[in-house]
Amino acid sequence: MPGYKSHKTQVQTRLKRIEGQVRGVQKMVDEDRYCIDVLTQVGAAKAALDAVALLLLQDHTEHCVVEAIQAGDGSKKILELNEAVQRLVRGR
Amino acid sequence: MPGYKSHKTQVQTRLKRIEGQVRGVQKMVDEDRYCIDVLTQVGAAKAALDAVALLLLQDHTEHCVVEAIQAGDGSKKILELNEAVQRLVRGR
Amino acid sequence: MPGYKSHKTQVQTRLKRIEGQVRGVQKMVDEDRYCIDVLTQVGAAKAALDAVALLLLQDHTEHCVVEAIQAGDGSKKILELNEAVQRLVRGR
Amino acid sequence: MPGYKSHKTQVQTRLKRIEGQVRGVQKMVDEDRYCIDVLTQVGAAKAALDAVALLLLQDHTEHCVVEAIQAGDGSKKILELNEAVQRLVRGR
Repeated sequence: MPGYKSHKTQVQTRLKRIEGQVRGVQKMVDEDRYCIDVLTQVGAAKAALDAVALLLLQDHTEHCVVEAIQAGDGSKKILELNEAVQRLVRGR
Repeated sequence: MPGYKSHKTQVQTRLKRIEGQVRGVQKMVDEDRYCIDVLTQVGAAKAALDAVALLLLQDHTEHCVVEAIQAGDGSKKILELNEAVQRLVRGR
Repeated sequence: MPGYKSHKTQVQTRLKRIEGQVRGVQKMVDEDRYCIDVLTQVGAAKAALDAVALLLLQDHTEHCVVEAIQAGDGSKKILELNEAVQRLVRGR
Repeated sequence: MPGYKSHKTQVQTRLKRIEGQVRGVQKMVDEDRYCIDVLTQVGAAKAALDAVALLLLQDHTEHCVVEAIQAGDGSKKILELNEAVQRLVRGR
């Protein structure tokens, strides 16, 4: 079971909405809409992806990481978590 | 004509690919894939959106902003550009 | 004259304050203060640096970039501006 | 004991260097140096602060968070960790 199990529907709903946002941006570009208006919508999709990433990270920490530590086997999970946080902070 | 006119096909291709990435993330969640693997793909989609945003911003500056300044009417465009950069840097 | 000429005192005041914030963080570490409290102050210094960067970028665009374009010599400045925005957005 | 205890000297050395970087930026502004050169140094200081933040977060997770979970008392620490990661990712 992944850590986001209890939020699975919420994560799926958000990703569906982000897919719609990205399609909306494509439509704006098809229609030659103004650069800054397109940019604003790209920024909204990016902020929504950030929110999903933070939700996934939170669920992962609360479940997978806690369980590994309780089982006396946390080092690999902690290392992996730190790397994920670093990629997220550095936007890569 | 929007500033990204000459890169329109490239922008559309990238957005199409990002839409595919977001759908790929949905599929991973449907299949209960491991949190960190899902996170990595969310991060990749986010980095791709950032790249599109930077391309749009560059085109906008090179065309719309330059033209407005040359027409002696740059102040509003400069202000708008600065606000767009601020939103992008602050991830909002 | 740099683009930030008219905001020079404001930029200097902010940088002085950021230097004080960084020294404050050092003092917290000297005193073995709690990790999360140290982190919060590091984050505050980082947000303050971001604000200075955005102010410098705005002044640069409003003055140096506009003047270069008006002098018919904007291409190099536009390229340089776009590269600066990219480094800022990507946190590098 | 804070989580960064074993890296205390390294954290202090880095903060000292960042303080020097911020003072270097002030000197550049005093000397009316070119906006983009100032910006590049502000960006370097910001990246250095990010690296310190990630080191503190890593130490905090490896020590304080792990110990709290092992003591059966991890919920508050996990919540606090998630909030710190969110502030870091959102640059606030």
